[in-house]
Amino acid sequence: MSKWYENIGTDNTPIISSRVRLARNLADYPFAMFLSDGIADKMITEVVETIKTRPEYCDYSYLNVNEATAFDKRAFLERHAISGYMFESERRTGLLSSLDESAGIMLNEEDHIRIQCLSPGDGVDEAYKKADAIDDTLENTLKYAFDGDYGYLTSCPTNAGTGLRVSYMTHLPFLESSNQLKSLITSISKFGMTVRGIYGEGSESLGSIYQISNQVTLGKSEEEIILSLRNITRQVIEREINMLEKTLAHDRASFEDNVYRSYGVLSNCRKISAKEAMTLLSNVRLGFMSGVLKVKKPPLSIYNVVINIQPASLIKNSGRELADNETRDVFRAQYIRNVFSEEG
Amino acid sequence: MSKWYENIGTDNTPIISSRVRLARNLADYPFAMFLSDGIADKMITEVVETIKTRPEYCDYSYLNVNEATAFDKRAFLERHAISGYMFESERRTGLLSSLDESAGIMLNEEDHIRIQCLSPGDGVDEAYKKADAIDDTLENTLKYAFDGDYGYLTSCPTNAGTGLRVSYMTHLPFLESSNQLKSLITSISKFGMTVRGIYGEGSESLGSIYQISNQVTLGKSEEEIILSLRNITRQVIEREINMLEKTLAHDRASFEDNVYRSYGVLSNCRKISAKEAMTLLSNVRLGFMSGVLKVKKPPLSIYNVVINIQPASLIKNSGRELADNETRDVFRAQYIRNVFSEEG
Repeated sequence: MSKWYENIGTDNTPIISSRVRLARNLADYPFAMFLSDGIADKMITEVVETIKTRPEYCDYSYLNVNEATAFDKRAFLERHAISGYMFESERRTGLLSSLDESAGIMLNEEDHIRIQCLSPGDGVDEAYKKADAIDDTLENTLKYAFDGDYGYLTSCPTNAGTGLRVSYMTHLPFLESSNQLKSLITSISKFGMTVRGIYGEGSESLGSIYQISNQVTLGKSEEEIILSLRNITRQVIEREINMLEKTLAHDRASFEDNVYRSYGVLSNCRKISAKEAMTLLSNVRLGFMSGVLKVKKPPLSIYNVVINIQPASLIKNSGRELADNETRDVFRAQYIRNVFSEEG
Repeated sequence: MSKWYENIGTDNTPIISSRVRLARNLADYPFAMFLSDGIADKMITEVVETIKTRPEYCDYSYLNVNEATAFDKRAFLERHAISGYMFESERRTGLLSSLDESAGIMLNEEDHIRIQCLSPGDGVDEAYKKADAIDDTLENTLKYAFDGDYGYLTSCPTNAGTGLRVSYMTHLPFLESSNQLKSLITSISKFGMTVRGIYGEGSESLGSIYQISNQVTLGKSEEEIILSLRNITRQVIEREINMLEKTLAHDRASFEDNVYRSYGVLSNCRKISAKEAMTLLSNVRLGFMSGVLKVKKPPLSIYNVVINIQPASLIKNSGRELADNETRDVFRAQYIRNVFSEEG
């Protein structure tokens, strides 16, 4: 079965993917950071059994995250299947996830339960529906920590209330290169929203990929949070597309040149770093989106290529060791050349 | 009929081409710079008729260089059919040349007669033979300025004696990038030889192309001049090839990467300057020479591509105006893409 992020349709819009996350805690357990290993295991087992006994989740599999190799954990992190928090945690942690990886339940992360649903393009409604269904299933059996005034209680107060975080993964090369992004981030933050790089708060913005998400989870309904984030994101996207259209109208030759050179290097290079590859893939994605790049489309989305060239994912897909950077850069180039020589 | 520089065999060696030039003056005329237009025309006519009445030169055509457009003259200069001196001269000048442009007689240049023969690869012997035959033809009819002690007399004393200059056009990317070229040029000059860029003394070394030629024309026989220049050039070439082989043995991945990226950019770019194109063509030539670049070979030599992308040659081949740099860079990119998509 193919993974949700393989969807190639998303290369046609600056919105790469959507994510919905619900933070929940069980009333009968102390918050995650205070759980002993034994109690954590008990809590995890309770949640896993609630899910595994239901036929609609028969394709879900369970992974003992704290027992996985650092390497496997990093590959999960690279495709956003687990959080940075869970990647670094040394406590008992687990992940229940659907076969296509579009739905996952992180267990004993910062909160007992983090339901996360991912969807290509603007799939927030679909992702929310799926997360909400998982939430209902759990709530029918388990007792959530819930307060009539505050709503769902969370380990960190910034997640309390709805416990909902919605994110759009967006591709914003023009806003980035025109330096408009900084002022945009400032205005967005006034609406209780935030913009981060592809790999979270501390990470650089690689490949011009940015996550736009809500910061405020309290005092608004789920519908309001989704609606306002979608409105803001659509305005951002509109500005990005306007800049693309202006460039196509006024400096098409330079734009074409940049796109085709990037394609030329990606489809011919013999070694390449992840960072350089992400920059060139960003240009190629723009080439496909604008219709300027008239070459074979690869059989997977550019975002999927971006994930697959990250160190751990690359090694996992190669089935080899690729111990040093040099070997990795050579294999990465080979992988990318193959991607662009396959028919989409 | 194809031109001598179209020969694709030369891409396999650092020696791109050979040139032999004989400087001669007629005894019955003052040196070129002292000729009035009328007397210059008379001198030119005398030489042209000597050649045109001989059946072996029936394919030779005559061009009134001083009446040609600056643009046509520049295209001749770009393919080394006329000298920089003749390009700039405002006096009466003419060029007799064979159909394949491998033999030419420049008239009323710095000297009355400059016989120039060009040949792909190490074709000095062939070029000398051809120049010598033209020289004999002229000497049988016309009276050369010749001195028993000094030999052939020339306008500038540095050309006196044999009047012979032999040049190898060579491709020396490794010697250039390793900074060994400067010390090499110093040692070569001690043997009465000189190294210049592709377009002569004042020009930068573009595309890692260098001309190695003799400076001293006096006190040595023609055979000695050719022999010592060939020996020096072979030593230079040997060092260049050694460096290539070392690189292939110790850092093949970086070398391959550089070669393929250059090919990727050339075969995909949408605009490119002559300077950047020459650098990338240098890498691609190295790729073909080393056997590393396994792509379709273009139907003409890389050196021919280098000539064809120079501004005047590019405009001439396009049949269009290409008035500004931007338009020229776009057409140059298109021309190069076509070259690399044609089967060799």
